[in-house]
Amino acid sequence: MATEIPVVRNILEANDRIADQLRKLFAAHKVFVPNLISSPGAGKTTLLERTLTDLKGELRMAVIEGDVTTDNDARRVAATGAKAVQIETDGGCHLNGSMILEALASLDLSELDILFIENVGNLVCPVEFDLGEDCKVGLLSVTEGDDKPEKYPQLFTVGKAMVLNKVDLLPYVDFDVERATRGARALNPGLEVFSVSCRNGDGLGAWYDWLRAAVAAKKA
Amino acid sequence: MATEIPVVRNILEANDRIADQLRKLFAAHKVFVPNLISSPGAGKTTLLERTLTDLKGELRMAVIEGDVTTDNDARRVAATGAKAVQIETDGGCHLNGSMILEALASLDLSELDILFIENVGNLVCPVEFDLGEDCKVGLLSVTEGDDKPEKYPQLFTVGKAMVLNKVDLLPYVDFDVERATRGARALNPGLEVFSVSCRNGDGLGAWYDWLRAAVAAKKA
Repeated sequence: MATEIPVVRNILEANDRIADQLRKLFAAHKVFVPNLISSPGAGKTTLLERTLTDLKGELRMAVIEGDVTTDNDARRVAATGAKAVQIETDGGCHLNGSMILEALASLDLSELDILFIENVGNLVCPVEFDLGEDCKVGLLSVTEGDDKPEKYPQLFTVGKAMVLNKVDLLPYVDFDVERATRGARALNPGLEVFSVSCRNGDGLGAWYDWLRAAVAAKKA
Repeated sequence: MATEIPVVRNILEANDRIADQLRKLFAAHKVFVPNLISSPGAGKTTLLERTLTDLKGELRMAVIEGDVTTDNDARRVAATGAKAVQIETDGGCHLNGSMILEALASLDLSELDILFIENVGNLVCPVEFDLGEDCKVGLLSVTEGDDKPEKYPQLFTVGKAMVLNKVDLLPYVDFDVERATRGARALNPGLEVFSVSCRNGDGLGAWYDWLRAAVAAKKA
């Protein structure tokens, strides 16, 4: 399999060129674009449902939803009143720049403050693919174990923020928030960490403040 | 990216040839080889720790551990007294046949009844790569959501068994065991489903019986 590495490099280079185009588009319209990445079931869609509902009227938001199959997540997002565009990767393990470019045909960037990208549930592959986003945001639910930043370091090394979700379950699992935070910040000292429960709303205020500041910085 | 599909096909074909070799080796030694696949943190290593401890003395077992990085899991497995061989994929999102072949140099198949393969935590990519295993076993923890078989269908379509783990957390999450089972069996009517808690041991007896039967069938 001697050809594997060069080919993968070509795919990534082609993707990087499209990502540069996307980055210029997002900059021209001053839209803040976070790329949400996590394992399946960590709570990306639930975090979006809360955020879209709680900041409705204050910020103009839309979502590009990536899934292997089904439009379940886009329908959940659309139920909040926000615009959602579904990308089905048909088995693919990550979103790439071409998919985002295609999805933009269904969105008017001039009407947005934030465009959330919800990647396919996968802690590994999506990290490799630049989507022209402002930053990657890693989600980790406390039921997954506090060793995960150390075991899956790529996302937490390049991400700008880590959202520790499902803290309402902390009494029932062996998860040390300090250990997870320490593990992630050992990789990335500047990482923002938000401990939240999308179920009961705990900790979401700090996440919302961070989004507000990012939008303001993008418009400045 | 017109070249992507043929190249991926070549990689998979090369892998399939190695997998055929592996399958012959496992058959010659009558070793039962389950390939455990799940999201990060669903409980693959914990299931192995319980299984290796509870069936010690009855079955001869070893583990090939796949991880993006760290040998944490191999050390956890080795603490039970079982032989563990760690494969670090160095960023790679799945195990492939060559890695297994290399790991076999550190194992004596003639001394084993079961060789567990614990794949990299990833619900998508590992499914594509045949490792010469007898079957794929999907793990899903109840904190990930009962929609996951429907949203990530590949594993549950080709898997022989699904282990629903962390059922001790059912009182605290919205997870309908019936919905998850129905979703998975819609893809794969013959799928075995085990509801277990690796934390308190609930339901593990049926899983152990299934392993015993698989070992007996392999030796027959």
